Amino acid sequence: MVRIAVAGASGYAGGELLRLLLAHPEVEIGALTAGGSAGTPLGQHQPHLLPLADRVLADTTAETLAGHDVVFLALPHGRSAELAAELGPGTVVIDCGADHRLTDADAWTRWYGGEHAGSWPYGLPELPGAREALRGTKRVAVPGCYPTAISLALFPALAAGLAEPNVVITAVTGTSGAGKSLKPHLLGAEVMGSLSAYGVGGGHRHTPEIAQNLSVAAGTPVTVSFTPVLAPLPRGILASCSAPLIGDGAAAREAYAKAYADEPFVHLLPEGTWPTTAATLGSNTVHLQVTVDPDARRLIAVAAIDNLTKGTAGGAVQCMNLALGLPETTGLPVTGVAP
Amino acid sequence: MVRIAVAGASGYAGGELLRLLLAHPEVEIGALTAGGSAGTPLGQHQPHLLPLADRVLADTTAETLAGHDVVFLALPHGRSAELAAELGPGTVVIDCGADHRLTDADAWTRWYGGEHAGSWPYGLPELPGAREALRGTKRVAVPGCYPTAISLALFPALAAGLAEPNVVITAVTGTSGAGKSLKPHLLGAEVMGSLSAYGVGGGHRHTPEIAQNLSVAAGTPVTVSFTPVLAPLPRGILASCSAPLIGDGAAAREAYAKAYADEPFVHLLPEGTWPTTAATLGSNTVHLQVTVDPDARRLIAVAAIDNLTKGTAGGAVQCMNLALGLPETTGLPVTGVAP
Amino acid sequence: MVRIAVAGASGYAGGELLRLLLAHPEVEIGALTAGGSAGTPLGQHQPHLLPLADRVLADTTAETLAGHDVVFLALPHGRSAELAAELGPGTVVIDCGADHRLTDADAWTRWYGGEHAGSWPYGLPELPGAREALRGTKRVAVPGCYPTAISLALFPALAAGLAEPNVVITAVTGTSGAGKSLKPHLLGAEVMGSLSAYGVGGGHRHTPEIAQNLSVAAGTPVTVSFTPVLAPLPRGILASCSAPLIGDGAAAREAYAKAYADEPFVHLLPEGTWPTTAATLGSNTVHLQVTVDPDARRLIAVAAIDNLTKGTAGGAVQCMNLALGLPETTGLPVTGVAP
Amino acid sequence: MVRIAVAGASGYAGGELLRLLLAHPEVEIGALTAGGSAGTPLGQHQPHLLPLADRVLADTTAETLAGHDVVFLALPHGRSAELAAELGPGTVVIDCGADHRLTDADAWTRWYGGEHAGSWPYGLPELPGAREALRGTKRVAVPGCYPTAISLALFPALAAGLAEPNVVITAVTGTSGAGKSLKPHLLGAEVMGSLSAYGVGGGHRHTPEIAQNLSVAAGTPVTVSFTPVLAPLPRGILASCSAPLIGDGAAAREAYAKAYADEPFVHLLPEGTWPTTAATLGSNTVHLQVTVDPDARRLIAVAAIDNLTKGTAGGAVQCMNLALGLPETTGLPVTGVAP
Repeated sequence: MVRIAVAGASGYAGGELLRLLLAHPEVEIGALTAGGSAGTPLGQHQPHLLPLADRVLADTTAETLAGHDVVFLALPHGRSAELAAELGPGTVVIDCGADHRLTDADAWTRWYGGEHAGSWPYGLPELPGAREALRGTKRVAVPGCYPTAISLALFPALAAGLAEPNVVITAVTGTSGAGKSLKPHLLGAEVMGSLSAYGVGGGHRHTPEIAQNLSVAAGTPVTVSFTPVLAPLPRGILASCSAPLIGDGAAAREAYAKAYADEPFVHLLPEGTWPTTAATLGSNTVHLQVTVDPDARRLIAVAAIDNLTKGTAGGAVQCMNLALGLPETTGLPVTGVAP
Repeated sequence: MVRIAVAGASGYAGGELLRLLLAHPEVEIGALTAGGSAGTPLGQHQPHLLPLADRVLADTTAETLAGHDVVFLALPHGRSAELAAELGPGTVVIDCGADHRLTDADAWTRWYGGEHAGSWPYGLPELPGAREALRGTKRVAVPGCYPTAISLALFPALAAGLAEPNVVITAVTGTSGAGKSLKPHLLGAEVMGSLSAYGVGGGHRHTPEIAQNLSVAAGTPVTVSFTPVLAPLPRGILASCSAPLIGDGAAAREAYAKAYADEPFVHLLPEGTWPTTAATLGSNTVHLQVTVDPDARRLIAVAAIDNLTKGTAGGAVQCMNLALGLPETTGLPVTGVAP
Repeated sequence: MVRIAVAGASGYAGGELLRLLLAHPEVEIGALTAGGSAGTPLGQHQPHLLPLADRVLADTTAETLAGHDVVFLALPHGRSAELAAELGPGTVVIDCGADHRLTDADAWTRWYGGEHAGSWPYGLPELPGAREALRGTKRVAVPGCYPTAISLALFPALAAGLAEPNVVITAVTGTSGAGKSLKPHLLGAEVMGSLSAYGVGGGHRHTPEIAQNLSVAAGTPVTVSFTPVLAPLPRGILASCSAPLIGDGAAAREAYAKAYADEPFVHLLPEGTWPTTAATLGSNTVHLQVTVDPDARRLIAVAAIDNLTKGTAGGAVQCMNLALGLPETTGLPVTGVAP
Repeated sequence: MVRIAVAGASGYAGGELLRLLLAHPEVEIGALTAGGSAGTPLGQHQPHLLPLADRVLADTTAETLAGHDVVFLALPHGRSAELAAELGPGTVVIDCGADHRLTDADAWTRWYGGEHAGSWPYGLPELPGAREALRGTKRVAVPGCYPTAISLALFPALAAGLAEPNVVITAVTGTSGAGKSLKPHLLGAEVMGSLSAYGVGGGHRHTPEIAQNLSVAAGTPVTVSFTPVLAPLPRGILASCSAPLIGDGAAAREAYAKAYADEPFVHLLPEGTWPTTAATLGSNTVHLQVTVDPDARRLIAVAAIDNLTKGTAGGAVQCMNLALGLPETTGLPVTGVAP
């Protein structure tokens, strides 16, 4: 059995990690740590995780996290580099935060401030070349939830030269993406019955991560216009993505079918069917569709994921499987919980 | 007092018309008609409209609708031309349906099928030139809900030459926009907790209407890529709209401020603040923001409306006021119901 | 014109007061005050209240509130007695908080702690005798939202001797009832998709207020079992109330019809129709139904209200109208905003 | 491997059965049948069930269902007796419908009409004596969703003589409980933002089933007052249940702890913690709490379940495990999907 620890177990990402890890046949759950909630039982924060209800949260320190085969970090950004260093090179460290996602140190400093801690293998195995880098790795930078959905929606078109490297994205998300932050605009009474845009005009920190992924796929810098929208549901991202068409788009569907033919977690829907986030709830699956608008001469792809599962914790477990040499799909649901 | 009738009083648009007309100081409510619900009391379908609860719905016929100063039609498309002809040229007929919105007969036939019934003055007074055509008119084509939000979000930029005539829109909507249709995907259990795209790739009938409005504003044909998204809330449209920037965008905010300086129902939010649909609930107000993404070199505008109020019934009453020579804002709320 | 002030204008009760007062024909809006939000514009907290968006919130002090005809207090409990004393006996003070609702000083101390500040005329005009006490009063204790719905659901049965003084209530509410408190269980992601009970077993502070109202109606002490449930919607209370039947219940409907025959804001639904909170959204109306379960031998009444309107701010304005000698319904909507 | 068939695979109960059975290690999924949807692929109705997306639905006939070890029936009531007879006594038939739940033929006729088809072993293993009857059985009557939550909430108190046989229940439910019926009041726009009561006053068909279960537990006829409430969420039942206290209630918690000490799917929450339905989403777990209201002298128990899982399909699979002699918990999740 693989012994794992989760730092940040009282939050949404930590809770989803534990939900998946409880069902993982090769895993034994070790230390669970938290910040302000240290000293309280997990059941107080995650009442859905019955088998762990009485576990008391420890402080997030390297001492507590030491001695595990795998340590998942679900922490605010800026904390993982130091912790990883203290855990030593033999521990698999899987960082659900942003610290090691960007390869460009200047981009890091511009978007997050401070000094770049360096990049780790990027945890989106479906991207070209990514899976190989993850096999046997001791360090994983789990992608952001938006970049997961958007990169998978667009990279086949860019890689196949079917769309210009100039993409426009509006992605709608449920509110768990913002974490358990106590902010007025995240209160239920504010969220329910409302839609709101935020970080418009290039303000969202996931923008450079999306650009990085798509630029690698396209083999040329890709310009990204990204608008996130908050909608009244707990989980789910629906990413509406488009780019100017190259050619007539006849090859679009084929390119996507080929790109994802062997991917266990990416489902290209039958033609004419469009994704719904409910179909992905709690699963590690991406539902995807692509089409061409002949009047507007744009290629349009829409992806749906569960932001906490494939968008965070499921992606992290998928990477753990690769890092440990386990079958990649071990312990990961492909069916959603609907309706 | 102006005597009005509403055809289609059991539906969502009809209900919202009656909610607003009940509060209108110059209006007396006459005949209320329906299709399959004729013969039943309105209270059975619209329990929120207490003062009209005992009114029995009549059949939608020209006879029933005759003898009113204003007749609102909230009917499936294809029915208004004939009814309007029978009501005579002296009656103000305000069509909340699509029949008379498009000026291009070929576009009508392509998108709706059948023969075009001709266009009527377009009921979006905030568009350049539109208000004048509505004053004293006997016929009004009320815009679609999406075209209302999107046209107001983008026309100032196009009219001022700040953006290229090539726009990309993803608009998220509540489910009342689909009407009271008994379709499986509109059931509460399907809608709640889910986001879904539909009509992607140029499939939505509002696309030519949006293109028509924006092309007039730009003085040149505008290419429109439009993706609608269904979200779990009853009312509200949040339209995320963008286009390639011309110049550096420094004049963008000024152009919008100028375009809407005297508009009672369009509110350009303070810089840095983005619209939420909840703030517009039940009101005739558009909340709007514009910015520039310097990296992506795009102008981005986001508009929020209540699809049933400013997007349908409120816009219709605004046009009635203009048609009758009443102050344009009579009986129309500018404050939303929030949270 | 009546000049009014609102203390606590940045919260939900304050916002709803202002929404209603903006539409009130006899009112001029004066000082708006807040606690931690003082110094910021109202539009930042209440973006739906467009006409007041630029008003800057003042500190909640007697100085700021002085010089108005009516002062509404939407504050945490414990603050109104002192403020009212400083405002002087000539000012109409309408307290949306709990300080002056209970007539029994011991009950106050048991449920709220500290010393009782004395009771004020109770602002539920539909209760027997209450309206008379409110006419011309300078002080009003606005009822709690649950007691409003529950008292109106049950008092006619108790007053008519149709039910035993031993009632069981489960009331389901939207989350705005908890105010804009930054508590984890009120976050959108926690609330949406969930139902939860709280304050079970006699723990909710509205229990003694319910008992007080019903005991007056019954002319004998009434035992109250009250369970509140939080549901995923912003506004609305649906109170399911029952008591053992006296007799066969044949007179139940008649008793309710009689009790509410002249009440402008209480709507006894047609037989066989049950209330929905959506029909009351944003209105000052109570939708009510009563029936008898012959097998269980219980009388069952269900009431729906908007907790922020009839349950708080609408009830407060109704009381202001009575206090000032205005027609009781002035400025108060009876139609809800639905769907 | 056990070969199973599901009749009614396009509905909500059928979909949830398949979600669970896909994860069940001992099961192989055979025929999937439907009524009006026969001939279409399952993926069109249940897009979340990826591994079965291309399976074409067959007609619901005995021929199609024959040759399986276990047949699950998720059909409208009235159809299971005949089908079961045709399938023969050797097939395990698990009926998610109501046909065989009631033991009293007169009660059946009164509540459902027509002739009673006889009762089958009742599929709530946690009830005293029920588990034994389910072991090795060839026929199972799966309980209704409300009776599941309510019976488990109240039977320990009645069995222990801690409460009088006279119970009052208000249970709030998500809308999937009504199935995929195309009824106006189940449309998303009607459901979201609203709470509504229905079947009040003894009108709900689950009432006699609740009374039957509780009467067995109490050893005396139990009077049941049951009010169901529809709330805006897809899944979940929160049942608020109470009865007059016998004695002082000091033994209440102990009685519940004892009743459920060995039950894998019933979780008595720590004192002072109340259930939320979100914690049970997609799981077979019941979250339960009990307390005493000393003022009202009532015992109050609140149970939360997922109506589609423990309330229908999870309960059905639990019974299948018992019928087949498998470990009772095989393939059934105890952790919910939250937030």
